[in-house]
Amino acid sequence: MSAAGAITWEWGQEPVARAVTSVVTQSPLVHCLTNIVVAGFTANVLLAVGASPAMVENAKESASFAAIAGGVLVNLGTLSAEREQAMTTAAAAAHDAGRPWVLDPVAVGALAPRTVLARDLLSCRPAIVRGNASEIMSLAGSGAGGRGVDATATSVQALDAAMRLALTTGAVVAVSGVVDYITDGHVVAEVRGGHPLMARVTGTGCALGALMAALAAAGNTPLTAAAAASVLLKEAGGRAAEKAKGPGTFATEMVDQLYELAETAAGASR
Amino acid sequence: MSAAGAITWEWGQEPVARAVTSVVTQSPLVHCLTNIVVAGFTANVLLAVGASPAMVENAKESASFAAIAGGVLVNLGTLSAEREQAMTTAAAAAHDAGRPWVLDPVAVGALAPRTVLARDLLSCRPAIVRGNASEIMSLAGSGAGGRGVDATATSVQALDAAMRLALTTGAVVAVSGVVDYITDGHVVAEVRGGHPLMARVTGTGCALGALMAALAAAGNTPLTAAAAASVLLKEAGGRAAEKAKGPGTFATEMVDQLYELAETAAGASR
Amino acid sequence: MSAAGAITWEWGQEPVARAVTSVVTQSPLVHCLTNIVVAGFTANVLLAVGASPAMVENAKESASFAAIAGGVLVNLGTLSAEREQAMTTAAAAAHDAGRPWVLDPVAVGALAPRTVLARDLLSCRPAIVRGNASEIMSLAGSGAGGRGVDATATSVQALDAAMRLALTTGAVVAVSGVVDYITDGHVVAEVRGGHPLMARVTGTGCALGALMAALAAAGNTPLTAAAAASVLLKEAGGRAAEKAKGPGTFATEMVDQLYELAETAAGASR
Repeated sequence: MSAAGAITWEWGQEPVARAVTSVVTQSPLVHCLTNIVVAGFTANVLLAVGASPAMVENAKESASFAAIAGGVLVNLGTLSAEREQAMTTAAAAAHDAGRPWVLDPVAVGALAPRTVLARDLLSCRPAIVRGNASEIMSLAGSGAGGRGVDATATSVQALDAAMRLALTTGAVVAVSGVVDYITDGHVVAEVRGGHPLMARVTGTGCALGALMAALAAAGNTPLTAAAAASVLLKEAGGRAAEKAKGPGTFATEMVDQLYELAETAAGASR
Repeated sequence: MSAAGAITWEWGQEPVARAVTSVVTQSPLVHCLTNIVVAGFTANVLLAVGASPAMVENAKESASFAAIAGGVLVNLGTLSAEREQAMTTAAAAAHDAGRPWVLDPVAVGALAPRTVLARDLLSCRPAIVRGNASEIMSLAGSGAGGRGVDATATSVQALDAAMRLALTTGAVVAVSGVVDYITDGHVVAEVRGGHPLMARVTGTGCALGALMAALAAAGNTPLTAAAAASVLLKEAGGRAAEKAKGPGTFATEMVDQLYELAETAAGASR
Repeated sequence: MSAAGAITWEWGQEPVARAVTSVVTQSPLVHCLTNIVVAGFTANVLLAVGASPAMVENAKESASFAAIAGGVLVNLGTLSAEREQAMTTAAAAAHDAGRPWVLDPVAVGALAPRTVLARDLLSCRPAIVRGNASEIMSLAGSGAGGRGVDATATSVQALDAAMRLALTTGAVVAVSGVVDYITDGHVVAEVRGGHPLMARVTGTGCALGALMAALAAAGNTPLTAAAAASVLLKEAGGRAAEKAKGPGTFATEMVDQLYELAETAAGASR
């Protein structure tokens, strides 16, 4: 099902190629405050497309590092008391330094403490909020929340909530699913493609948030960064699935495809 | 060497297929409190067989999440003060909510603080305790402990300790090794197969504990969950070794094989 | 550009083969205090060459474990208050027990708190300090620091600083880059080879520090351990690149190549 008036973004469009190329040419430093499950995969995804990931997750260092970095990712996956403090500090520092930062509200809705934290973090004005349908609906104050990292709603069902959340926070809101929607509250971008195996590998959603941070760090607008990152990941997923025999080889192939797509885009622009 | 009176469990047996299928069809939510080394691999193993992993490892959230989840894994790999508190809380919550939980007493025996913690956790009545020979002997109060994660005894040497531990705790106890033994203190299941490369990849033991939690979460008895998970992992390891050139490709292949075995088992039952 | 008077170490030389073989035959226990991004990859690299990795990262256990282990790695990647305490304790215990330990001062220079910590840790006399050019220059008190994990200088530019740092600390200092330099302040070893894809996979540098700890734990001198580990990793990287299609398959192939190189070296010595 399609959203009325949504604009389709897809691989091959010039704004996508330009946004992806900007990461390859600038190699932006992306400060990732993320979780223990996907930290390695996230770093490899960022390196594959030419970005420079760095994970600094203690409160003593995260603020000064957020100001050095081109962009910041705050992913609530495996919260701890210290990580929570580091995230709050980094989000505030990114805001003060004018650096774009991405909020990935993992499992918000299912767990009360992180729902409170995520809402607090919104006051530091993320450039982009990326989540699944359940997480976005919970953050927007509608819906009862999913079960952990699983969405119990489809992305199109969360579109109204996403638009409302975008208008009240000023962030671009991206809802990930079989179809991705990205909105600033006024226009809606729609991204199709990908492959069901993407849901059988941990960290594809988290890596998408990191890619958005990389593209925003390279100077793209939040809407372009979020939409082009979604296109890039779905395209890589679709191509990887053609070569994969299962989720193990798929994860490896996806990193290869991201690398090839980024190099190709950058090469074509030279 | 075989244990007298042990019953052989292997791939192709109907109870194994039924147990594996139950995970594919139910997609149980498995709450994993595990370590930074294997968290990603564990999540990918669970996703490959159709389970839904979630890692929540702070004390504020772990109790409520343990009650939402179908099953819980407590793996002592990289303990921290906060993880220790989250584990204690989650184990108690799982016990109170009647959720099966699995204790993986990594390096117990080699390190005094975690030996004390593991014994305390037994009071929350895990459904399954899974470890190598040294860990199980230490937990049962016999043996001097291994060196970290390495067993310095073979699994059959730990079988008496495992049976005693099962009788005193009410848990099913699984001893992993070249041959896996699973016992409730009365009957003993024996699982052969696998491949030496399994010991050259980090997290195969930890992933086995997670698979046991997934199978228990899907409604299987602790004995069936532990034995069928052991069969599934050894079968996947044996098949992966036929395709692998070394431990790198082996780890990737093992995830693919787990996916294929689970899909095949579920497909055959449809 | 070559450093004047540097001695070339490369694959096929007898001291390299002997050092690599010592890990396969002794399977040294390597206690890794490392970061959440690379912990899994580091463990897999160590297992591939026959070492036995164990990650214990809390202050209650790290001192006693450092004394059990054959060697210790202290990698500052994702510092936390608890990890910092565990590292300080483990470094002191390794020093007191006469165990070789490796300091990997990730992002030192870019971040003030860890620069202070790294300098404090030097008083526990690491056998080896391994970093990129920016990190080594910062630790030696020269240079303005890189940006996070990226070197902003080439390895040869850091050679003077490395020699000075070696003389003042008594450690062997290894500077990683397109060319690796290893020095005790008097002699300089030079290691070439590898492949640019090594910089597109997270954890190759961190894994190199771990390999150095494994080789030192197996009884090699710090200079031999550091130089032979550099040769081993660059050789594996070069071979992996011939088979890889991108950074995803490259990381997997590199683990396979490390396994094959170690098995081959050990087999030839039997």
